Formats: sequence, structure tokens, C-alpha cells
Amino acid sequence: MNNSNFKGFQDAGEAILKFLYQRFGFNLWMITRVEGNDWIVLQSEDHGYDVKPGQVFSWADSFCSHMVTGKAPKIAPRSEDIPLYASAPINQQVSIKSYIGQPLIKEDGSLFGTLCAIDPQPKSEEITQDLEMIELFGNLLSHILQAELRENEKIRQCERLEAEALSDALTGLYNRRAWEKLLYAEEKRCQRYGHAAAVFFIDLNNLKQVNDQQGHVAGDALIQHTASLLRQTARKNDVVARLGGDEFVILSIETDEVGAKTLLKRVMHGFEQADISAAIGFAMRHPSQGLTNAAQEADKKMFEHKRAMKAESS
Amino acid sequence: MNNSNFKGFQDAGEAILKFLYQRFGFNLWMITRVEGNDWIVLQSEDHGYDVKPGQVFSWADSFCSHMVTGKAPKIAPRSEDIPLYASAPINQQVSIKSYIGQPLIKEDGSLFGTLCAIDPQPKSEEITQDLEMIELFGNLLSHILQAELRENEKIRQCERLEAEALSDALTGLYNRRAWEKLLYAEEKRCQRYGHAAAVFFIDLNNLKQVNDQQGHVAGDALIQHTASLLRQTARKNDVVARLGGDEFVILSIETDEVGAKTLLKRVMHGFEQADISAAIGFAMRHPSQGLTNAAQEADKKMFEHKRAMKAESS
Repeated sequence: MNNSNFKGFQDAGEAILKFLYQRFGFNLWMITRVEGNDWIVLQSEDHGYDVKPGQVFSWADSFCSHMVTGKAPKIAPRSEDIPLYASAPINQQVSIKSYIGQPLIKEDGSLFGTLCAIDPQPKSEEITQDLEMIELFGNLLSHILQAELRENEKIRQCERLEAEALSDALTGLYNRRAWEKLLYAEEKRCQRYGHAAAVFFIDLNNLKQVNDQQGHVAGDALIQHTASLLRQTARKNDVVARLGGDEFVILSIETDEVGAKTLLKRVMHGFEQADISAAIGFAMRHPSQGLTNAAQEADKKMFEHKRAMKAESS
Repeated sequence: MNNSNFKGFQDAGEAILKFLYQRFGFNLWMITRVEGNDWIVLQSEDHGYDVKPGQVFSWADSFCSHMVTGKAPKIAPRSEDIPLYASAPINQQVSIKSYIGQPLIKEDGSLFGTLCAIDPQPKSEEITQDLEMIELFGNLLSHILQAELRENEKIRQCERLEAEALSDALTGLYNRRAWEKLLYAEEKRCQRYGHAAAVFFIDLNNLKQVNDQQGHVAGDALIQHTASLLRQTARKNDVVARLGGDEFVILSIETDEVGAKTLLKRVMHGFEQADISAAIGFAMRHPSQGLTNAAQEADKKMFEHKRAMKAESS
């Protein structure tokens, strides 16, 4: 290793996992993120389990979900002797005979994820003496993560300022080019930290009709009205863009499915109040697939919604 | 320790020193800063050497100055066996028979200081096997420090923005209240990171005379001219304030004595060019005494300069 200059949480995490593997020899070391019941692998030092970053397991099934409550030990040389570990459903997926785990904590004290290890063989009782070391590495990682998330918030602000040069003239929203850039930048953060995010596609139903019957000034007014409604309904940090014509999108960052559904309801309610007819589809980012995929899925759902609306009205 | 939320470099450093002491049992563990030939103790876990934060040793005399060149080992269970360590002048100040050291690196790759330990007894050869661990802790600390220094730069910018509300009406420079606040805030950073800094006191010689002979408008113009001269001569990040009357001050941050002397020359040259007569004194912050002390010393030196100028002209 020598005198490395870690660039961030990722580098530091990799160095810690490598060191811990060399010292303790567990076949799998991981840094994970907990997001609802999703237990997302952010980094892995794998020597036999074949677990890769981006894989998702069930948090409730894991050893770690018991460890973080304090009801089961952080170091279990023989995990079968610990009832909560012996009965954990993840045993049916992989063979685990020994376990190490330490929570990673966010700035507000809430759980971010874990630093943990499993091995298919039981280990010597001696490893429990290294609890302090495991805790120290976990706390250092938590701190590095916290500082980096704060710094990322600043980087995100700068990205937005830059992207503002790429705005849609009619509405002041981000244009398609800005949307693509911001989606790409956010995807990098989602990969690194396991942030959840949602993408919305929104399409006006009657723009052509308004343009034809009431003229382009009325059509432009409808577009502007929609833009300001979306901007006001989305959270301050969400990205709202107009991809062109009657097509709008929202990237809702660091939000889970409950948050995304709340936003969906608020947008639909806003359209109803304003008597605007629009089709909407949304999709959550899946950790192993990414935001581009979520965008395609949201677009598809929007079209399904549009078709259903047409079938209803005819 | 358990799941601690480290607030920063200080907390993380303390936890690492405590852990390393428990694991290796060296009587003194330190985190140090190198500033020219000053070797400044930032943190210590001391069990017998009586070394405290703020103490300053000679960098050239230290073991660490050889360790960072790579010419002497990071772990020396019997330091007397290593010629560069055996001949280091620091042996005359304290008894050292074993040594551990790891450089702490700044973002640009330059040396910040070291994580190190000494003990009056030789140790078992076995401890050399823990080189990877020492390097990992050093690299993690370097990273935490780098992130924190970046964040501090942002905090400093915010302090300045806040302090701008406390400006001197005539010159737009910071007033005495702002000066005191900024000096206090910078002192905290100097203590934590061992930053060097210099304080300048500047006093106009002929303001009363100008006011009496040419009127207050001319006096105010002299003050404004002085202010803009100092603002242009100091570095962008330096604090320039007007304490009142004909009294000005500069806090030159993260600067060593060479830098401070360069600034002194530039200020004196500026006054000469502008045909303004002023007395100037400056002092470096001494790590064990702080910026308030440096300010008093600079003030005193300014008065000495003023007296010398008067003696010369009479």
C-alpha cells in the first residue's frame, strides 16, 4: 500500500477491505448500504462467494440487520452458536459459519449501511479480541463518508449552476442536454453510495389540440404552466427538465419508493387542480441497473398510462 | 469506542492514537505537523514522555525526518540498530529505543506531518509485521485531513462573508470587531492543523499632521489610499482590517516566515512608492502561544519601528 493518497470513500473502503481480508482471511468482505429492505453491495473483496457491487439482498434476511440492533455480536467466530444468526434466512442462500459486522452511520446518527464479512468456515475465538479495530475502521469509514456526502452536496450545486446555462428558452427548465448530464452525474453517486432515486416521465395529452384550436400562444402558455407546476411540486433538489415538445421529466434524488409515490400524487393532484391532462409514469432506480434504465422504464409506463387514458375517454 | 461519530480530524486522530497505544504499547504516540524546521505536536497520547499538543521540536533532529525520505524504516523495534536513528540529535533530549512512523500527506502530495510513536524500551521484531496497518491508518488520517482542509476553506469563505457586515465605513476594510472574530476563528485552525500565520501592525505616522494642515478630507484620503494599498499588497486570503484611527492590521494565513518577510517588503515598497510614512511591525504565530500573542508582539515591534523612525528624522 505504502503512502497512498485516497481519493475518497471508495478508495479508502477498498484499502480497508483489502487489509481486513489479509488480516482475518474471511472469504467475503463488503461495504453495504441499507435502503428500506434493500441491502445493497457497494464494495466487495470477494474470494469465493461471487458477490459484486450493485447486487441487492434482503436486509431483513441478513446477519447485519440483527447486529445493528445490538442484539447479536459484531464478531461471531461460530455464527451457528448465535440463535439470531443461525435462524437468519440468508443462510439458505449462502453458507456462513463465521461473521464480522460493524454499522456505518450517517451524520444524523441514522444507519447508512455496514462494513461486514462472512466465511464458510468457523474461526478461532481469538478474533473477538480485534473488536476495537473493526469498530475503529467502521467509524473512520463513517466519518469519511459523511465528509464526502457533504462535499458532494456542494458538487451537486455546482453541477446545477453549470447546467443552468443549458436551459429551455420557453420554460427556464433544464433542456435535454442538461438532463442527460445531470442524470449521468447522479448515476455515479448512486453507484458509489447506493442512493435511491426515481425518474418521472410526463407528457401533455392535448398540446396539439390547443395549438390547433387556440393558437401557439395558448399552447406555449400551457407548456409554461406545466413547467411551473412541476417545478413547484418537485423538491428543491430534484431535477425538472423539458426534453422538448410536450415531454417533461423529473429526477427525484435520494428518495425511496414512498417518497416517489408521494411526489406522483402531488403532481397528479396539481394537474387536476389546473385542469391539465397529462400522462405520467415513474420508475425507481434499481441498484444493479441504474438511472438510464429507470428512465426507459418510466417512459414506458408513461405510454401505458397514456394508452389507458385514451381507452377510458373513448 | 463503539459506534462513535467522529467530528473530524481531531476526533479521528485521538481514536487512532488511543487504539495504537493499546495495541502496541509505545509510551508516546503523536500526530505532528512539519512547518519549515518546526516539528509541531498536534495531538499526543502520552504515557511517560510528557509531550503535549503545541510543543515544538526540531524537525532536522527527529527520527521522522529520516523516515519520510524512505532511507530509514517505518517500524524500528530496536532503533539503535538503525544508524540514521542512532545518530539523530533528538536522542540527547529523550530516551528512544524503538520507533514507529508514517508520513501524513497533503492533497498535492507534499508532506503535512507524521503519525509516529517512540518508546524507551526496544520491542519485539514481530511488530514489523503490522506495517500495513500503520500505513493504512496514516493514509486514512491523511485523507480525513485533506477533506477537512478543503471544507475549512469553505468555512473560512463563509466567515469572511459574515465579517463583511462588520466593515469600516471609510475604507471598506474589516473593523476591529471583525478582526477579533477572524483572528479567533483562525487561531482554532492553527491549533488543530499547525498552520503557520503572521500578524502585521501598521500605523500611519503623519495622519494628525495632514488633518491639521490640509483638513480632514485630505486625512480621509490618506486613510483610504493606505487601505487600498494594503488590500492590493496582501494575498487574497489574508485579512486586512482597520482597527481605528491610523491603525491597520494584516493577518497573513498559512504563511511561513519567508512568506511574511516577502509581504513586509512589498508593503514597505508600496508605502515608499506612494510617499506614505508608516511604521510596521510583524510577528509569526508561535505554535505554543497563538495568534493573540503574535498580535501583541507585532504591535510592540511596530512601536519600536515608529520610535526608530522618529529618532532617525530628528
